[in-house]
Amino acid sequence: MDAPEEIVNDQPNNTCFGCSPHNASGLKMSFFELAPGQVESHCTIAPEHCGAPGVAHGGIQAVLLDEAMGMAITAGSEEEAYVVTVEFKLRYRRPVPVGVPLVVRGDLRRREGRDAWVEGAIVDTRGVRLTVAEARWRQIDPPEEAA
Amino acid sequence: MDAPEEIVNDQPNNTCFGCSPHNASGLKMSFFELAPGQVESHCTIAPEHCGAPGVAHGGIQAVLLDEAMGMAITAGSEEEAYVVTVEFKLRYRRPVPVGVPLVVRGDLRRREGRDAWVEGAIVDTRGVRLTVAEARWRQIDPPEEAA
Repeated sequence: MDAPEEIVNDQPNNTCFGCSPHNASGLKMSFFELAPGQVESHCTIAPEHCGAPGVAHGGIQAVLLDEAMGMAITAGSEEEAYVVTVEFKLRYRRPVPVGVPLVVRGDLRRREGRDAWVEGAIVDTRGVRLTVAEARWRQIDPPEEAA
Repeated sequence: MDAPEEIVNDQPNNTCFGCSPHNASGLKMSFFELAPGQVESHCTIAPEHCGAPGVAHGGIQAVLLDEAMGMAITAGSEEEAYVVTVEFKLRYRRPVPVGVPLVVRGDLRRREGRDAWVEGAIVDTRGVRLTVAEARWRQIDPPEEAA
């Protein structure tokens, strides 16, 4: 089986803090599509993105999860989809350390009309799920300049 | 009535992405305690913290809310409290623009044992609640180096 291709959103209009390769302040996340609706990203959180010393900020964890969960909805889609987070619930199970390799997972669970339900997790190298998340996303009309 | 005092967590060991004045990459949030358990922060989100162009990243919004909600629990407390987010739920009602003044609110609603329930909101200058949040925090034992 072929290794999954790395997904980098390098479109010039992408300035996203999470996934743009052009945003000098950003996290520059890339993704691997493991199966339809299922992605992961390999990350190491920088010390400057901590909350308590040595522990990743809960909001930076939300950035990572939101990115992987959004990518789970849109990866593999033929047409460009405009989707936004509507509801996002995180459960912080164990501290997420900075400076160590982590995997961030996104998993599309269900679609209904314009809505999509997605699960996510930040997982350490032993496979322990440190933070888990659920979200509802909604497909919106394209912005006018893209329509 | 006196204007509330600005709260800046300028302790040398504070390197937090959200509220440290020493973190060059951070948001450098400060807070005003409006009443016991009720704080607000005045922020303008930088363009590099966007998701879609011009719109604040949902995870950066989580950073802002997590900070204000945590400060609502600890502000005014005589003793240093070690509290962590356990569950965090956000509802994105309307896009939060970058580059404009915003108010981030945190409001302690209830305590029970070591747990505290807090509400938060990102509000525009007209008073519209763009994103709202609820969280459960838990008081933990101090880290060993602080005990």
